[in-house]
Amino acid sequence: MGTDRIHSLLERVAGLKTGLYEKDFLLTWKQSADDLRAVLLLAEALEEMWRANIRTRVFHGGLAVSNFRDKSTRTRFSFASAASLLGLSSQDLDETKSQIAHGETVRETANMISFLTEVIGIRDDLFLGEGHKYMAEVSAAVEQGFREGALPQRPAVINLQCDQDHPTQSLTDLLHLKKTFGSLEALRGKRLAMTWAYSPSYGKPLSVAQGIIALMTRFGMDVVLAHPEGYDVIPELERIAGRQAAESGGSFAKVHSMEEAFRDADVVYPKSWAPYTIMEQRTALLRGREAGKLEELEAECLANNAKYKGWECTEKLMGITSGGKALYMHPLPADITEVSCPTGEVAASVFERYRLATYREAEHKPYVIAAMILLTRCRQPGRVLGELLSQAAPHRLG
Amino acid sequence: MGTDRIHSLLERVAGLKTGLYEKDFLLTWKQSADDLRAVLLLAEALEEMWRANIRTRVFHGGLAVSNFRDKSTRTRFSFASAASLLGLSSQDLDETKSQIAHGETVRETANMISFLTEVIGIRDDLFLGEGHKYMAEVSAAVEQGFREGALPQRPAVINLQCDQDHPTQSLTDLLHLKKTFGSLEALRGKRLAMTWAYSPSYGKPLSVAQGIIALMTRFGMDVVLAHPEGYDVIPELERIAGRQAAESGGSFAKVHSMEEAFRDADVVYPKSWAPYTIMEQRTALLRGREAGKLEELEAECLANNAKYKGWECTEKLMGITSGGKALYMHPLPADITEVSCPTGEVAASVFERYRLATYREAEHKPYVIAAMILLTRCRQPGRVLGELLSQAAPHRLG
Amino acid sequence: MGTDRIHSLLERVAGLKTGLYEKDFLLTWKQSADDLRAVLLLAEALEEMWRANIRTRVFHGGLAVSNFRDKSTRTRFSFASAASLLGLSSQDLDETKSQIAHGETVRETANMISFLTEVIGIRDDLFLGEGHKYMAEVSAAVEQGFREGALPQRPAVINLQCDQDHPTQSLTDLLHLKKTFGSLEALRGKRLAMTWAYSPSYGKPLSVAQGIIALMTRFGMDVVLAHPEGYDVIPELERIAGRQAAESGGSFAKVHSMEEAFRDADVVYPKSWAPYTIMEQRTALLRGREAGKLEELEAECLANNAKYKGWECTEKLMGITSGGKALYMHPLPADITEVSCPTGEVAASVFERYRLATYREAEHKPYVIAAMILLTRCRQPGRVLGELLSQAAPHRLG
Repeated sequence: MGTDRIHSLLERVAGLKTGLYEKDFLLTWKQSADDLRAVLLLAEALEEMWRANIRTRVFHGGLAVSNFRDKSTRTRFSFASAASLLGLSSQDLDETKSQIAHGETVRETANMISFLTEVIGIRDDLFLGEGHKYMAEVSAAVEQGFREGALPQRPAVINLQCDQDHPTQSLTDLLHLKKTFGSLEALRGKRLAMTWAYSPSYGKPLSVAQGIIALMTRFGMDVVLAHPEGYDVIPELERIAGRQAAESGGSFAKVHSMEEAFRDADVVYPKSWAPYTIMEQRTALLRGREAGKLEELEAECLANNAKYKGWECTEKLMGITSGGKALYMHPLPADITEVSCPTGEVAASVFERYRLATYREAEHKPYVIAAMILLTRCRQPGRVLGELLSQAAPHRLG
Repeated sequence: MGTDRIHSLLERVAGLKTGLYEKDFLLTWKQSADDLRAVLLLAEALEEMWRANIRTRVFHGGLAVSNFRDKSTRTRFSFASAASLLGLSSQDLDETKSQIAHGETVRETANMISFLTEVIGIRDDLFLGEGHKYMAEVSAAVEQGFREGALPQRPAVINLQCDQDHPTQSLTDLLHLKKTFGSLEALRGKRLAMTWAYSPSYGKPLSVAQGIIALMTRFGMDVVLAHPEGYDVIPELERIAGRQAAESGGSFAKVHSMEEAFRDADVVYPKSWAPYTIMEQRTALLRGREAGKLEELEAECLANNAKYKGWECTEKLMGITSGGKALYMHPLPADITEVSCPTGEVAASVFERYRLATYREAEHKPYVIAAMILLTRCRQPGRVLGELLSQAAPHRLG
Repeated sequence: MGTDRIHSLLERVAGLKTGLYEKDFLLTWKQSADDLRAVLLLAEALEEMWRANIRTRVFHGGLAVSNFRDKSTRTRFSFASAASLLGLSSQDLDETKSQIAHGETVRETANMISFLTEVIGIRDDLFLGEGHKYMAEVSAAVEQGFREGALPQRPAVINLQCDQDHPTQSLTDLLHLKKTFGSLEALRGKRLAMTWAYSPSYGKPLSVAQGIIALMTRFGMDVVLAHPEGYDVIPELERIAGRQAAESGGSFAKVHSMEEAFRDADVVYPKSWAPYTIMEQRTALLRGREAGKLEELEAECLANNAKYKGWECTEKLMGITSGGKALYMHPLPADITEVSCPTGEVAASVFERYRLATYREAEHKPYVIAAMILLTRCRQPGRVLGELLSQAAPHRLG
């Protein structure tokens, strides 16, 4: 890709009206279409600049703080990569090593870690009703600290997965769809099947499924959600998906089998998640520290899951998708039948055919995060990258 | 603040005779007044340069090693922020992941981690008689390694809190006082009440109280120390405070109630700490790994603490300070009555009135640490920052 | 050292035919002599550039990932120092914090952490037959990801100690020998005694001993290996050492006492390791998670070790080396008799006489690692450093 095309991506950013400067990125449905388009354009430009060996250091000092309240590999490395790409120093807020355990309030800690901080990335997806609330609290704290003058700059809070949404994943997925189908416009009328799939594990967050139905309905796609009885997502998210589909000229529908969802689909996204009601019980038990009952709940949940081993993305099911050639998507790691477990979310031959595509999908995430940082922290991110592009200093010499 | 004023701060640094180059920063009372003034001036300049979006990268390669032997949030982030501000890479010496557990000597480890290291920040405040000793050992080790030629540069050891002193905190506090009252000279004759306060916790270090009485007596303040019977600080520190007060034209006195200390005070610093004798017993029990007796000691200590629930910074007590308007200070997190605990160090309304002031107080710490790094590692730190100020490259583009 | 001499080192690199570009550094015996010479020359140049305060930042963005599957202090800090020296951001892959625990395959994880990664340093030395295998798997994964286009660059995998080799240590040692004796050529015909030594510990890796006999036999040295009965190294490594000695005009011999090995030696390398067969049993027991039997094995092994307390590097033994003045080497930490344990690998007076030399030996490691990164990631590393040398920007201002 020539630098001409990168310049053109950046000019399109400059033409958008985004409202992200000195704000956060928490939930895609709270952001304007221009905000989302700007994330994609900047992410694409950054990715091309990295591949063309062009330096993109917008910062020379300052922290990118990560706060992972759940395990993570790919998002952790994506966040660290975004920080390095832009020139920020990564610093992890490890709540076991800090005095947060000693009863500090969220407001105070959020300010104490932010004196030279440009961005705070948070993963908090274990408890329904908690994750987004915590991020909103951190956001309110740094907003207040900045307005009051205690903080020299307003760190952006970026949602690295909460109980409701997983925007760095869903926008990564959207960029993958844009590249696969040629443009955002080409997604209009395309059928995407977001379906539950069987996994021999327990307690996976609902936020990927929720993030996908909430984001893809905004771009005119025909989004179908399928899951076994009792595996509903948060009802509010279905309402949002429905409303947005109506506005965008797409559609949102629920069906009750994988087969129904896959039929004529252009894109399939089979992925396991825990039932909403189980997650609610789990949250209550975890709060009460009732370890015994948690084990019972886990056993019950796994037994319930096992009723739905038929929810697997097989070659046969792939055969009924549009032209037998739907794009398979997954945020990884997938539970692959006879590879990672006896029965899983996807048949080995299906996964292997799309393995490289899922890697390419994942590749966008560092740039999506970096784009969010630029949009929240720079007044004119398109112009700044344009200048770095013109300078064309390499990020790797020799 | 214009760059003229920053230039003037830096010129004043150049006029001071500091002895910190290729040394450590361990205890304020071992440093000259010029050393302390230089820390404040450079910290102020760095803070203004950051706020004015001016790059302050003095290093392009090299490590800032942190070694936290006790939990920490704000100091950990302050140290990492200082490293990022100056261009150093942070690296934590985590003694659980290293072979130190395998019996390495301090001397050897100190050298092994220092081949490209500019600064080693250490927190070791749990055991009386231990923390400073450990830092002095590390210092002797890197000094020897440097003299012998094994180390290409002499890493500075910076005390991030030991059993005796907490210089990055006390100098942060002094800078806060300087800014609040207008100048160091304006502190002359001001009354500062360093008092114990009740907390439903146990084993807090004595080093904040000790650091405050040892530092503020050098600037002509009238320092009053108050605590319940049995909560004495290390006797040597009281002698140092007394001697320094005599030299500076200030005073140092002990009184036996919060009321007596607060009366007509210009500054109040109510904060809990563990009794010296309890800390000594605790150190002995920890060495002997006597878990049962440690629990007994903790219970005894908490019961003893509970006798002094009256030692709380209330509105009534604030009312008897100078004009009813003394400055409230705390290193945070404070134990706030009915907010973080049923009864604590400070009433909620008092804390809330000064909350923003405590945040501003804390904001100085990254710059105080960075100033210590510059003074110990650069021959002419004022001139170096002056050149960066003239270049005026931004740390955040766009 | 003047910059002329550094330029001459770098010109010699340019004259070598190395095959490391876009490859890994896993085992010294798989690399050409030119590859090894290039590592030494670049390491020397980098060390001199650091000491001459010349900036060596070849990267401006990108990760240096470390993956320590065993404890480490010096290698951890050496890797982080190399990353900082060259401008990469360090990121540790901590398998307890990541989803690797959830069953991700190595192939997938290796790609997921590599989108902006230039180097992956791995320590995996606990299990015979495992460490090198794991590194080879990671290497194959990133090679495939790069060829398929999922990775924009090919991260180099660098062996930070496996079950077979410890190349960053052995090349550090070789550079120390080169500097001590004046040149690589001067090592020809020098006698090096790699001998087992008693330690009151258990399960130390064999890879240092194996790495030394495999590397030093390539440079015409007369290498002697000595150990008690049952403490053999991997047989294949002895075959490699023998073959290489024949090719280089050196020799490789096994003897059965420390005395025999030390006689007339120019270099002695007394260091403990676990018996090969014990390591094999241990690997099997660890796989089977048989904790009870592991304890039995440890007790048995320590009892067996204790039969060989006579294997200590004493003054008497040093007296029979060449001129009584052999160079003592150790990767540290050494078990020093009456210092770190009642009886250990080396007498205190011997160690103290060579302590500084062992520190200087260790000092080379960050630069050896950085040299490996440059050779694997840059087409013309000598030319790139030469340009930085000409620019002569300082890494520490002031």
